[in-house]
Amino acid sequence: MVEPVIGDAFGDLLRRCWSLGGAPGRVTEVVERDDGFVSEGDVARYFGGADSWSPREAAVLRHARGTVLDIGCGAGRHMITLREQGLRVRGLDPSPGAVAVCRERGLDVEVGDIDRLPDGPFDTLLLFGNNLGLLGSPTAALIRLAALAAVAAPGARILGSTIDPYRTAAPAHTAYHAHNRERGRPGGQLRLRVRHANTATDWFDYWFLNVDELEAVLAGSPWRIDAIEHGTDTDPIYAVVLMLR
Amino acid sequence: MVEPVIGDAFGDLLRRCWSLGGAPGRVTEVVERDDGFVSEGDVARYFGGADSWSPREAAVLRHARGTVLDIGCGAGRHMITLREQGLRVRGLDPSPGAVAVCRERGLDVEVGDIDRLPDGPFDTLLLFGNNLGLLGSPTAALIRLAALAAVAAPGARILGSTIDPYRTAAPAHTAYHAHNRERGRPGGQLRLRVRHANTATDWFDYWFLNVDELEAVLAGSPWRIDAIEHGTDTDPIYAVVLMLR
Repeated sequence: MVEPVIGDAFGDLLRRCWSLGGAPGRVTEVVERDDGFVSEGDVARYFGGADSWSPREAAVLRHARGTVLDIGCGAGRHMITLREQGLRVRGLDPSPGAVAVCRERGLDVEVGDIDRLPDGPFDTLLLFGNNLGLLGSPTAALIRLAALAAVAAPGARILGSTIDPYRTAAPAHTAYHAHNRERGRPGGQLRLRVRHANTATDWFDYWFLNVDELEAVLAGSPWRIDAIEHGTDTDPIYAVVLMLR
Repeated sequence: MVEPVIGDAFGDLLRRCWSLGGAPGRVTEVVERDDGFVSEGDVARYFGGADSWSPREAAVLRHARGTVLDIGCGAGRHMITLREQGLRVRGLDPSPGAVAVCRERGLDVEVGDIDRLPDGPFDTLLLFGNNLGLLGSPTAALIRLAALAAVAAPGARILGSTIDPYRTAAPAHTAYHAHNRERGRPGGQLRLRVRHANTATDWFDYWFLNVDELEAVLAGSPWRIDAIEHGTDTDPIYAVVLMLR
């Protein structure tokens, strides 16, 4: 078997969905995990408004203020809502296609990621839509949390959300968590890539961490948990407000 | 990267969609080609009635008569329609999950495939839903067409449909066709597997052949084209009635 071509699979999906008006049921994202597990999601969710988000994310987003940087902004769903609230919003995404879609929507977005932050200061740093996962790994998280602090204005906050990966009994997932621990990684440090047609993104680490793991990694960082909206067993997404110490 | 577990990915998808009432927009099939190309399809289409099929298939299905064998029957969409028309219908599918769903729908289906046909005689042999692709390859097709003739009653017909693979200019597909020819296969002889969660089917050959290729392979077989409903550039599905010579 031949491997797919490395390309902007995520951006291609967003562009295609955007060309169809962001309508649901038309374009499907395939995410492959490095144990061969595949999952599918409707790309239209990247265009969904606040009524389509977790209620925990909607609650935490009310803490946004000032100048906002949305890291891994995708098609700009959170930026659109914050802009409607009168906030100044900038966005970053490593996908050129995502950036193109955001610009067509009139959003101020550039190619970049959590390791390539623009100069601040920012009052609010957004790691939404599970993007606390962009902390990547325990080691990378310390570097990235320091970098976020370096572009943070006094009194700035990180608004983040992610999934507690351990609230599942599905054998395919618990076996993967065990496999991760055997290779010295946290159970929820997923290695993923997005596939579309003949292209795939490069593999990337996306860390689904529970609250205990988050608290442990924050202990070595300039950030502390200021507020938390807990998930449930049936909806394990949780959202946090992190403040500079 | 680890490979997925070999399993009944197709049957798992059908069962899941069936448990949701066959509703659209809920369960997505991921099909991977051996060059790394992935495509996605709504599993609900395997439950769709005649109004959801190609009009060419609907036209050709009117030639069904007597005792029908549906080869690769999936969730039984064609069998349901033929049963409503008062025909006697039996089905085969290699997927245990597909067979289970069909039986829950009251259909007479067993595990099997084009290489494991039940004793006949059958008046109508169904290779619908692109299942002329199950002819597999030029070599396998000759064996399979002979085996179909062996279970055919006098005057029997094969009703089949497939896609002309060459009615595309998409580079990902034309490059694959060229790659196939380089390795001595017809351009449209796809090597595929279905993926779902942590499982994948084994790789299998599914031959999308155009009318010229079909005529060439039939020349060495007991079958001839009796009627054909041609596709178009925008809808390249075509359907045929094959009769014993």
